[in-house]
Amino acid sequence: MSIRIEKDTMGPVEVPADKYWGAQTQRSINNFKIGGEKNQMPIEIIRAFAILKKAAAQTNAELGVLAQEKADTISTVCDEILRGELDDQFPLVVWQTGSGTQSNMNSNEVIAYRSHVLLGGSLEDSVKKIHPNDDVNKSQSSNDTFPTAMHIAAYKMVVETTIPGVEQLRNTLHAKAKDFENVVKIGRTHFMDATPLTLGQEFSGYVAQLNHGLKALRSTLDHLSELALGGTAVGTGLNTPKGYAEKVAEKIAEFSGHPFVTAPNKFEALAAHDAMVEAHGALKQLAVSLMKIGNDIRMLSSGPRSGIGEILIPENEPGSSIMPGKVNPTQCEALTMVAAQVMGNDVAISVGGSTGHFELNVFKPMIAANFLQSARLIGDACVSFNDNCAVGIKPNDSMIKRHLENSLMLVTALNTHIGYENAAAIAKKAHKEGTSLREAAIALDLLTSEQFDQWVRPEDMTGSLK
Amino acid sequence: MSIRIEKDTMGPVEVPADKYWGAQTQRSINNFKIGGEKNQMPIEIIRAFAILKKAAAQTNAELGVLAQEKADTISTVCDEILRGELDDQFPLVVWQTGSGTQSNMNSNEVIAYRSHVLLGGSLEDSVKKIHPNDDVNKSQSSNDTFPTAMHIAAYKMVVETTIPGVEQLRNTLHAKAKDFENVVKIGRTHFMDATPLTLGQEFSGYVAQLNHGLKALRSTLDHLSELALGGTAVGTGLNTPKGYAEKVAEKIAEFSGHPFVTAPNKFEALAAHDAMVEAHGALKQLAVSLMKIGNDIRMLSSGPRSGIGEILIPENEPGSSIMPGKVNPTQCEALTMVAAQVMGNDVAISVGGSTGHFELNVFKPMIAANFLQSARLIGDACVSFNDNCAVGIKPNDSMIKRHLENSLMLVTALNTHIGYENAAAIAKKAHKEGTSLREAAIALDLLTSEQFDQWVRPEDMTGSLK
Amino acid sequence: MSIRIEKDTMGPVEVPADKYWGAQTQRSINNFKIGGEKNQMPIEIIRAFAILKKAAAQTNAELGVLAQEKADTISTVCDEILRGELDDQFPLVVWQTGSGTQSNMNSNEVIAYRSHVLLGGSLEDSVKKIHPNDDVNKSQSSNDTFPTAMHIAAYKMVVETTIPGVEQLRNTLHAKAKDFENVVKIGRTHFMDATPLTLGQEFSGYVAQLNHGLKALRSTLDHLSELALGGTAVGTGLNTPKGYAEKVAEKIAEFSGHPFVTAPNKFEALAAHDAMVEAHGALKQLAVSLMKIGNDIRMLSSGPRSGIGEILIPENEPGSSIMPGKVNPTQCEALTMVAAQVMGNDVAISVGGSTGHFELNVFKPMIAANFLQSARLIGDACVSFNDNCAVGIKPNDSMIKRHLENSLMLVTALNTHIGYENAAAIAKKAHKEGTSLREAAIALDLLTSEQFDQWVRPEDMTGSLK
Amino acid sequence: MSIRIEKDTMGPVEVPADKYWGAQTQRSINNFKIGGEKNQMPIEIIRAFAILKKAAAQTNAELGVLAQEKADTISTVCDEILRGELDDQFPLVVWQTGSGTQSNMNSNEVIAYRSHVLLGGSLEDSVKKIHPNDDVNKSQSSNDTFPTAMHIAAYKMVVETTIPGVEQLRNTLHAKAKDFENVVKIGRTHFMDATPLTLGQEFSGYVAQLNHGLKALRSTLDHLSELALGGTAVGTGLNTPKGYAEKVAEKIAEFSGHPFVTAPNKFEALAAHDAMVEAHGALKQLAVSLMKIGNDIRMLSSGPRSGIGEILIPENEPGSSIMPGKVNPTQCEALTMVAAQVMGNDVAISVGGSTGHFELNVFKPMIAANFLQSARLIGDACVSFNDNCAVGIKPNDSMIKRHLENSLMLVTALNTHIGYENAAAIAKKAHKEGTSLREAAIALDLLTSEQFDQWVRPEDMTGSLK
Repeated sequence: MSIRIEKDTMGPVEVPADKYWGAQTQRSINNFKIGGEKNQMPIEIIRAFAILKKAAAQTNAELGVLAQEKADTISTVCDEILRGELDDQFPLVVWQTGSGTQSNMNSNEVIAYRSHVLLGGSLEDSVKKIHPNDDVNKSQSSNDTFPTAMHIAAYKMVVETTIPGVEQLRNTLHAKAKDFENVVKIGRTHFMDATPLTLGQEFSGYVAQLNHGLKALRSTLDHLSELALGGTAVGTGLNTPKGYAEKVAEKIAEFSGHPFVTAPNKFEALAAHDAMVEAHGALKQLAVSLMKIGNDIRMLSSGPRSGIGEILIPENEPGSSIMPGKVNPTQCEALTMVAAQVMGNDVAISVGGSTGHFELNVFKPMIAANFLQSARLIGDACVSFNDNCAVGIKPNDSMIKRHLENSLMLVTALNTHIGYENAAAIAKKAHKEGTSLREAAIALDLLTSEQFDQWVRPEDMTGSLK
Repeated sequence: MSIRIEKDTMGPVEVPADKYWGAQTQRSINNFKIGGEKNQMPIEIIRAFAILKKAAAQTNAELGVLAQEKADTISTVCDEILRGELDDQFPLVVWQTGSGTQSNMNSNEVIAYRSHVLLGGSLEDSVKKIHPNDDVNKSQSSNDTFPTAMHIAAYKMVVETTIPGVEQLRNTLHAKAKDFENVVKIGRTHFMDATPLTLGQEFSGYVAQLNHGLKALRSTLDHLSELALGGTAVGTGLNTPKGYAEKVAEKIAEFSGHPFVTAPNKFEALAAHDAMVEAHGALKQLAVSLMKIGNDIRMLSSGPRSGIGEILIPENEPGSSIMPGKVNPTQCEALTMVAAQVMGNDVAISVGGSTGHFELNVFKPMIAANFLQSARLIGDACVSFNDNCAVGIKPNDSMIKRHLENSLMLVTALNTHIGYENAAAIAKKAHKEGTSLREAAIALDLLTSEQFDQWVRPEDMTGSLK
Repeated sequence: MSIRIEKDTMGPVEVPADKYWGAQTQRSINNFKIGGEKNQMPIEIIRAFAILKKAAAQTNAELGVLAQEKADTISTVCDEILRGELDDQFPLVVWQTGSGTQSNMNSNEVIAYRSHVLLGGSLEDSVKKIHPNDDVNKSQSSNDTFPTAMHIAAYKMVVETTIPGVEQLRNTLHAKAKDFENVVKIGRTHFMDATPLTLGQEFSGYVAQLNHGLKALRSTLDHLSELALGGTAVGTGLNTPKGYAEKVAEKIAEFSGHPFVTAPNKFEALAAHDAMVEAHGALKQLAVSLMKIGNDIRMLSSGPRSGIGEILIPENEPGSSIMPGKVNPTQCEALTMVAAQVMGNDVAISVGGSTGHFELNVFKPMIAANFLQSARLIGDACVSFNDNCAVGIKPNDSMIKRHLENSLMLVTALNTHIGYENAAAIAKKAHKEGTSLREAAIALDLLTSEQFDQWVRPEDMTGSLK
Repeated sequence: MSIRIEKDTMGPVEVPADKYWGAQTQRSINNFKIGGEKNQMPIEIIRAFAILKKAAAQTNAELGVLAQEKADTISTVCDEILRGELDDQFPLVVWQTGSGTQSNMNSNEVIAYRSHVLLGGSLEDSVKKIHPNDDVNKSQSSNDTFPTAMHIAAYKMVVETTIPGVEQLRNTLHAKAKDFENVVKIGRTHFMDATPLTLGQEFSGYVAQLNHGLKALRSTLDHLSELALGGTAVGTGLNTPKGYAEKVAEKIAEFSGHPFVTAPNKFEALAAHDAMVEAHGALKQLAVSLMKIGNDIRMLSSGPRSGIGEILIPENEPGSSIMPGKVNPTQCEALTMVAAQVMGNDVAISVGGSTGHFELNVFKPMIAANFLQSARLIGDACVSFNDNCAVGIKPNDSMIKRHLENSLMLVTALNTHIGYENAAAIAKKAHKEGTSLREAAIALDLLTSEQFDQWVRPEDMTGSLK
């Protein structure tokens, strides 16, 4: 591999000749061989850095602390990054310095040196026309840029991937709830037969769960929209021009299309990541809901002959490498695995979030990586589950009918007529003798056949007329 | 122990003669010997049951399905429970049926049998004037009462204990932030010396954290104010009179003094506990914040001679059984232990919340117990930390001054004058040679003594003038 | 309340006149009003302190640093504590100083002042004949006594409650596995019908899980048997006589009946609680296993008419307050709630265990409380589940037979005769047309009726002959 | 993109013409668009499949159920996979069916079709000479192959990466403990000054932690060495020849170089992943230890001027993009972020492990991915921390000396001479007046200067002579 020499304040370093990065990026590559490629800093963070570096450059130019030409060149490179043209210039892993300084410097170096080339220079030049720290990082510190990038990337992922994905599934389940509103079926509590409800009612519970989850998630966006940028090293805004923090947040809002604002308190924004903890708490709530929903669909569709089998789900692939003809609830499985992952990520984020010290939390890259994984997985998994499972769910009418007719818990409708204890006697007799409720009721002389027919009507027990 | 015989639908059971409870409570005592007394159902749940049983009785009377006299007697007993007069009648543990049916029946039995006595009967009577199921539990099921009790108890604890406790601490920290707004001190990032800020700014970050946490917690109250009552067995409201759900929620709101409403979707309210998951997520966020705050205070007060020592905390007790004269940050320790507990409880609640099946979640008592512990611990610990530590925090001016004057990171102010690399050279030289920044700067001929004095002014670096 | 004045190095404190505790206990009561009675220090820790204080006193006497008479009086009081006669003398909560110093001092004070009374003194005497620090705490520090008490209490709970409880359940399940070894039933993978196995094989999996869990738990006992005592303040053993650490561990082993030894490295024993983390990891593994087992039993017994219903579990109590005659898998529910709790406690312990600083971990009481709860809950819940559910499990032969005969997955036996793809065609045809496999196979002309009978024999498919 | 048509039992699918995979792999690509490339099945699982497919083929040949030529061709392709030559043939993500069936089929298809090509066929041929199910998957099911691959990959990662990495760090810390055995320094408990110890003693605690962690991790290897292979669909071993399970485990042991054995109970091996839960519990224990160690090193090296500063760590890179000359404990940060991640992964694995149903756990890929990440991260991070931090740690003698001399807690040595209360009076006086202990002691007339010199000798207080 051809190399060139780059220098930083600690001395010279060998760098691949064809890469735009500099000494500090290379030091991180050399010093943090942890986890391999899959553990590279999420590309969403790299892109968020491009947005903020462009915003910072233009703000610096407007406020007179950076030449406009420099700002424009920097912006040109940021746009290249945003178009994905420089993705191979960001090799660092999550497991680096906990402030993300090295990824900030990776951005600074790539932007500076690529700018230098765009301005006619050569990577071999020892002095570059744009300086990573003095120009690209002007009015910034890793300590405020990295949390800003975290919020930009997290907000975008939540709004652009998580919420639309969950909404899509919610909408489908809502439509199913409508479609199934007259499908009377047995209820189950404690996994045991209970009084009836409609399949539509059952699905409406899932819709309510997702609606509550979406509302909870949206409630966290305000906090997430607060940007640390302008706080620089410790939150005081040292080395920033007057008005910088507000203006740079406006530009980020403009460039990203999302309503970012400058954080009212920069000390919190650097030293804590409660906004991430808060928003991930809502993702975890959604995970908890999706675990329930995925489990229910899996169990309702179980069978085909020896399970509950009250719904039919699409057959997407052969289910078994050894059992011919088997079809499995694979989308439920992917969904519930995602839910478990998000529950785990929540702990990692909470541990990281709780362990900041003084002016800086140094679990930033870990928190960012877990958050982005969770937010994407929930969005993606909801779409996958929606498209490949939920939209195709159909009631299995014959099984629903058989279960309903057999149910002993229809006896509950008799409570208000003959009292709990008499009703219990009927159910117990029928259960013990394997007969129908009607037979048991009449044998016990507790009511007439006509009364039974009048009082025990599953369709009246679902309350759907109220 | 003197005993009497009580019966339920499964047959007779021996019960202590002097207790109001009946057969089903006793079966639970006999069948669930798990965890001992400390694991008894939280008293807040028992009290919440009293509120809801009274509300249900009065609603049933108004809607004409229960005699007013019965309703009034039931209400009288509920008031006794609320005054704590019957606390020894609720012996069941958390580790029972996951629907809390046995605690619901414990309430039903105690209220019915105590009512029977109030109405002139004897506990020995085989038929009681008030029936646990047909009267006390009328228009109810464990499946909607227990989650209702959970929400009542949780809401009350959050609003009456957690929020006031956190607010008290927040207010003290806010006052401290004001008091300390001119105390310029060294900042620390990566646990290493950094640029200065004021002690007030540092504390303002804690205030911002708690404000965000309080806001997040309040955002969850809407969901928590939704009551399952009226859903009965599976959410359909079977065996409830028309208008019952709305009216009973109104009465609960009236009796409790909190704005409870009937849940728009009862299926979600029985089958999931996302409202508890959601609200506990906010408690966990507060725990994460308090861990940070507790750690910072502990570390800032470390010493007395070989630590950071920039603040002084009250000396409340001898700190060591072997080291005479030792004073420790014991309130920080209680606070951070509470934080760890809440982080653990969050996982227990998430696991429980995610594992509902079909129409019912059967991790209810466990979820309730963890939630109530967390909510109380945070409230109590904030008050304890506030009263015994935070209010007495004082800056240790001499240490603050010494640290500030020695700091190498004041060099950062020179970036905008001489560039990052020159500034780094000064800091490195001073560090290596153990000299002051000024000496190093002048030795390197990078600026004059006058320039140094003009540019490196810690008080100007805190941005507090902006 | 009648009071008396006690003093410590910080001055006088009012103490209830009739209590044996002194100034430092009272300061903790006053300063840590967190969580209430249910959060009192576990009684197992108090008893463990009694063992260690007695061991320390006798060792000190043997090594000539404490008068034998003092040691004997101290021992007498320790025996009173062990018999539960002084339980009301230990009012402190878990949420105190993180070293447990206040509980150590509570023990020291109660033992000293009770000794003083036994020696003829009065609690009102300003000088006591036995000094809490200089006598009872001799050769000790909170920093080594509290972790010692943790290990004693944890070890005892694991060996005396957890392991026997799990073993009892394991033995029952093992007996069931034997009993059911010829009950051929349908298997289920992905919650869907699969190839057959015996009910005994299914249960043998549970036995294997518990055996592995027991083995894992026992593997942690060595680490847990290491005692910090002798390390005193920071692990160096300052102020202990020569030979003390080994001898005191021997006495603790003798008095407790368990093979405790002195920790080879005292610094680890004070600063970390990896032994607790390790042993609780095994408890968590058992919780994971029990969650699986509890879920399976719940699902296998589901019904009675519209579930899987392949086993019958004992009917212990009425299952519903509204649905007459309902029986629920309540023991499964208690068991799985316990499992969720232990999973949460594991996080609390890990967070606490990871946050020690320098020579001391100050999450000790929280770690102890969670550990003891988990260890007891698992033991108790296994016994409860065993006695009230597992021992009464019976196969529901008619349901098992019906499911087995209907199963399409018996087709798997044909793979080796006609290939996976042909077998799949048979299963799909039968599934689509609702016919039997035999009918479909013959209709497709893939084999004869005789071949079908010869090749598709569920009892041969369970491999139990191998 | 050029395509060809492949078929499975559900019909035809379009597949990239140049890829070896078939219809089922492609269905998974189409149906599970979740998480993107970074979420691909870990390559270690793919390689483990190659080992087991080769072992199965050779075993099948030996037992006469597969032609030797087929087995040899299959083995040739497996060797290609093991050499990394076919890495781009395994595009599936973790978030697929929870049994990993699709990755099993991906292996089956790639091996079969690549074999077909090696045998002179063309990918365009509609019938291949080797069948994915009937040949490559012979005597196997996804349900036993995937858990087998999990154990192979996990065992290898633990033994080849985790343990050597931790050992390397342990050895370095052990050497440091030796090097520093005479460096007497102040101890710290509660983050406050305490009695002295040597820096070597402090480090010996870390060594003890890692030794215990390594022992705990090794204890889990037995369970992890048990292979499910031979259980096929539900654990019964249907469609396997006699002796297969034992023989195939032997071959896997031979091919992998690790002592794998056939699981004594296949039902547990398919339905639960307690071995993974167990081994990851030990990884989590190590994470807890590393969090403590990383924090301590970070705090001990804090400064350079306003921290604790008792050790010096290597300066590896510029620490700040804005603060010139700053050096940060970046390796501690990477290490502690890894620790937090592993603590989160533990919850994900526990949730997944606890949620198996009946004969199969369907959280397999998620469990595998988290386990492998944790095991690698711990190994890699220990090496990184070792090479770039631990080996270069040096005591900062001047700071150590200053702290030691100032310490008030040296007074503890006086307890045995003048009693705890007198000693406390000295410490308090010195603290209050800012004097030395000696001055305060003499002023209080509690001992002579000579006695002070004789009794208060830090080097005697470390117990290192005992």
